Amino acid sequence: MKKIELSKKDTCSSFTVRVHFISKENMSVVKLEECRQHIRAQLDSVVEFWLKYSHDTEHGGFFTCIGRDGKVYDELKYVWLQGRQVWMYCRLYRSVDRFRRPEILEAAKAGGAFLRKFARVSNSGNQWKCAFCLTRDGKPTKVQRTIFSECFYVMAMDELSRVTGDEEMQLEAEQMMEQLIYWVREDSSGLGRPQLPGDVPTNSMAVPMMLLCLVQQLSEGRLETGRKYAELGSWCVSQIQQHIQRDGTAILENVSLAGAELPGCLGRLQNPGHALEAGWFLLQYAAQNHNKEIQRTAIEKFVQLPYESGWDEEYGGLFYFLDVDGHCPTQLEWSMKLWWPHSEALVAFLMAYSQTKQPKLLERFFKVYEYTFSHFPDSNSGEWFGYLTQEGKVALDFKGGPFKGFFHVPRCLYMCESILDDLLAEKD
Amino acid sequence: MKKIELSKKDTCSSFTVRVHFISKENMSVVKLEECRQHIRAQLDSVVEFWLKYSHDTEHGGFFTCIGRDGKVYDELKYVWLQGRQVWMYCRLYRSVDRFRRPEILEAAKAGGAFLRKFARVSNSGNQWKCAFCLTRDGKPTKVQRTIFSECFYVMAMDELSRVTGDEEMQLEAEQMMEQLIYWVREDSSGLGRPQLPGDVPTNSMAVPMMLLCLVQQLSEGRLETGRKYAELGSWCVSQIQQHIQRDGTAILENVSLAGAELPGCLGRLQNPGHALEAGWFLLQYAAQNHNKEIQRTAIEKFVQLPYESGWDEEYGGLFYFLDVDGHCPTQLEWSMKLWWPHSEALVAFLMAYSQTKQPKLLERFFKVYEYTFSHFPDSNSGEWFGYLTQEGKVALDFKGGPFKGFFHVPRCLYMCESILDDLLAEKD
Repeated sequence: MKKIELSKKDTCSSFTVRVHFISKENMSVVKLEECRQHIRAQLDSVVEFWLKYSHDTEHGGFFTCIGRDGKVYDELKYVWLQGRQVWMYCRLYRSVDRFRRPEILEAAKAGGAFLRKFARVSNSGNQWKCAFCLTRDGKPTKVQRTIFSECFYVMAMDELSRVTGDEEMQLEAEQMMEQLIYWVREDSSGLGRPQLPGDVPTNSMAVPMMLLCLVQQLSEGRLETGRKYAELGSWCVSQIQQHIQRDGTAILENVSLAGAELPGCLGRLQNPGHALEAGWFLLQYAAQNHNKEIQRTAIEKFVQLPYESGWDEEYGGLFYFLDVDGHCPTQLEWSMKLWWPHSEALVAFLMAYSQTKQPKLLERFFKVYEYTFSHFPDSNSGEWFGYLTQEGKVALDFKGGPFKGFFHVPRCLYMCESILDDLLAEKD
Repeated sequence: MKKIELSKKDTCSSFTVRVHFISKENMSVVKLEECRQHIRAQLDSVVEFWLKYSHDTEHGGFFTCIGRDGKVYDELKYVWLQGRQVWMYCRLYRSVDRFRRPEILEAAKAGGAFLRKFARVSNSGNQWKCAFCLTRDGKPTKVQRTIFSECFYVMAMDELSRVTGDEEMQLEAEQMMEQLIYWVREDSSGLGRPQLPGDVPTNSMAVPMMLLCLVQQLSEGRLETGRKYAELGSWCVSQIQQHIQRDGTAILENVSLAGAELPGCLGRLQNPGHALEAGWFLLQYAAQNHNKEIQRTAIEKFVQLPYESGWDEEYGGLFYFLDVDGHCPTQLEWSMKLWWPHSEALVAFLMAYSQTKQPKLLERFFKVYEYTFSHFPDSNSGEWFGYLTQEGKVALDFKGGPFKGFFHVPRCLYMCESILDDLLAEKD
């Protein structure tokens, strides 16, 4: 009897399969089926965790600072995470039959109402800034001088409008989108950052990534909106591609507006998980636009390269930050293993494999899968730990925090399940 | 032969002493003498490192992003660190005979000129904000909405004026000080933070600590200035004491303006190294003002308590952040061992011992000393590593970065050497 052991830990035990004299092709089908079952069970468990512990039934919205065992350790409400949870609930409700449950819809509506009532903080002129953080009852405590709170506001409102049919809400999402485009492409002064002679404008990869994500969100199933944002989508793709540097050998997180490398640590910074996320954004775009060239770039540059430079051969897992010249990054957490780069890597490799059927991509999916499911899920209290040391020990034991909510884990599980459904249907 | 082994590593080998049948009193004198010699050699070596690698002879000011072997890996100039290096050079030049060297004074003057020319960024009205970060040639890249760049500007200008005799510079330091007092005690709107309903004003320990430090800086040897700032000094002390919480059992980093505990993570945050630094600020104040009550509070609450709650019994060293209720802090680096809390702890315990002669304080000084000198100094390339994992492995290997410059290490060594000189002179 041949036994494929992919993990030593309980959390991955469903992935340990016994196989008798089967072909390589059949073996991968068995493994993929095991993956699907495990991912499906993980998604169910993660959804239950957040349904059980995160709802603020008094004020609406969600608690996201949730300890190891589900206890709320801080009542602050981070707007990124409020918007993301509304989006994720609605997406699951809309796309996955078993999640079309009233309590999920009701929680999403209450979260949406909380956001509409409190997130927008008047700024100046006709421009609305969203807060970064609110008190439990909705008073703003901090406003960031970036676009991201507003981006997650758009995602939440658009997805919620798709399940409720609320057209006013959808209009609101598009209005906020117009403002985002204005800030990014016309005039960023409304963000409130002082203009400083040494602070040269940069192309930070997060910005075109987020806008591309919103283009895909708003355009889904809407031809006219798709046409309206087609040029913007194309612009985002070219802005993302500007991050391919060093003669095509590296993805750098920040480049100049002209697409050149920037000096110093800022210019040399690499964020492998972020590049992998950009990779599957580009793969989605390539599929929607039947563009093989973008598909190839996405896989070679944004999926394979960041994995090759970002994987820790000593302890396994993806580094959080790296310096392309091998200097030590100045971010204290650079060598830590975070949950979300691994979530993004799973989606990226599985999507890349599903589009191309290259065996190497599936091998890497399995390798990331093995590390991820043997390290991050908490088999005792549910959900995933988010922050491990370089060596893979849990460094921060909470399940939710200022930057970890109901988003990367369920999005990854939902997308992987959906891709696996398609892959396995093909193989039937 | 009895051998006292305090460390297994080379860096601390000078501390391994051989002792033949000596009394307890004599033994501590021998150990203190060993410490003094080691600290003196360390200070010499650290000064040489920065003299060799950090000077920008083209634009003035200092490079502070300096790699393991002395190589500059980023040319940005962080204003906190520029001000601190000017201050430290001048303090050493003024107070320690062997550092009264022309190249130290010249570098300090060039750093001071760079700061005067570039650090102040016009804000609004008659108020001057200092940048947080400048390009190599002095263009501002970032302005923080806090008081700290301005505080280090004052420290630099005042100390530099003391070695050059430049009265205009000293006046400038006092003018900036007046502005700081206005921001802290009258109206903080000049800092540029938006007023948000959920952002309640807090007493963050850093603010009264910094102002107390500046009061001591500006008042040294100046009776009239001392009288002018006496009330402010007393106010700072009472503001710092507000951080004694939980019936006197814990120092919390942030409290309300009324001195009450704040909700959530912000309110429960502990920063043991910061509390220890406040401890020796208070001990200096107590000595200057012959106040035994403040001395007792400083030792019991700001030196002993943070050590007891902050020391890692498993791996040794002081945690960076803790939550008073034992929740996991949300700062990713909470369990790391940083150089500066250990520097502050050395000063705090040695000063506390020198003022009281309580043996327990000396024991703890030796314990911190042992951990510090067996973990932080780099015996190969000089200077100290700044950032270790919880287990004590070097996590970031640079010698200088955006927050580590020529300050905590040399200040600690200079102060400990000076206290040891006095202690050993008493024992002669």
